[in-house]
Amino acid sequence: MKPLGRHVLAEIYGCKFDILNDIKKVEKIMVDAALEAGAEVREYVFHKFSPQGVSGVVVISESHLAIHTWPELGYAAVDVFTCGEKVNPWDACNYLTEKFGAEHLTAKETKRGILPEIFTREAVNL
Amino acid sequence: MKPLGRHVLAEIYGCKFDILNDIKKVEKIMVDAALEAGAEVREYVFHKFSPQGVSGVVVISESHLAIHTWPELGYAAVDVFTCGEKVNPWDACNYLTEKFGAEHLTAKETKRGILPEIFTREAVNL
Repeated sequence: MKPLGRHVLAEIYGCKFDILNDIKKVEKIMVDAALEAGAEVREYVFHKFSPQGVSGVVVISESHLAIHTWPELGYAAVDVFTCGEKVNPWDACNYLTEKFGAEHLTAKETKRGILPEIFTREAVNL
Repeated sequence: MKPLGRHVLAEIYGCKFDILNDIKKVEKIMVDAALEAGAEVREYVFHKFSPQGVSGVVVISESHLAIHTWPELGYAAVDVFTCGEKVNPWDACNYLTEKFGAEHLTAKETKRGILPEIFTREAVNL
């Protein structure tokens, strides 16, 4: 069976402190990354930590984008999960890397929802 | 350097249709899974798709839990990202598996935020 989705976990290093520590900037860049990748944004929520750091998620029709930032380390942990053919999670990752002024991106893609045959057969018989 | 976080991607199969298709049930189970694992819940947002399926995320002080459900396949794609020593992402995964009445869990853990030395050195010199 074809996977239901693609999930990219991205380690983004050497980012600008002033971007990663600004909840409004991170929120805008994340929503724009979703749109840039061709996704349909449904909901989003972001949280600012004290003294520094931002966490947030954008729920898209095609799944989600999530981020956690450590501005003091110039590091952002990002994950982009997409379903369907329309949206490419790597487009969002590359957009984020550029907008965070990052020096380095390390990322890997995992296929999600490769269902064992026993479960798909049972589902069809529901 | 010690990783900043642990990220578990979980494929949960053979779940009950009526749970996976009910936004309120999925939301409550996800929030309870976070609490069960000892996390501090900050924000959460869930979305119901037509004709079926729920997507949602719980932002916790220690990172996040996210879910996408395919009730017609009895399948839920879950990810649990935690930072620090206090919260064990596997506790949340096991709780979800039980509450979804699932038959099978396949999951793997990825370490997040293993920063290359060049970036930690630069961060210290900020």
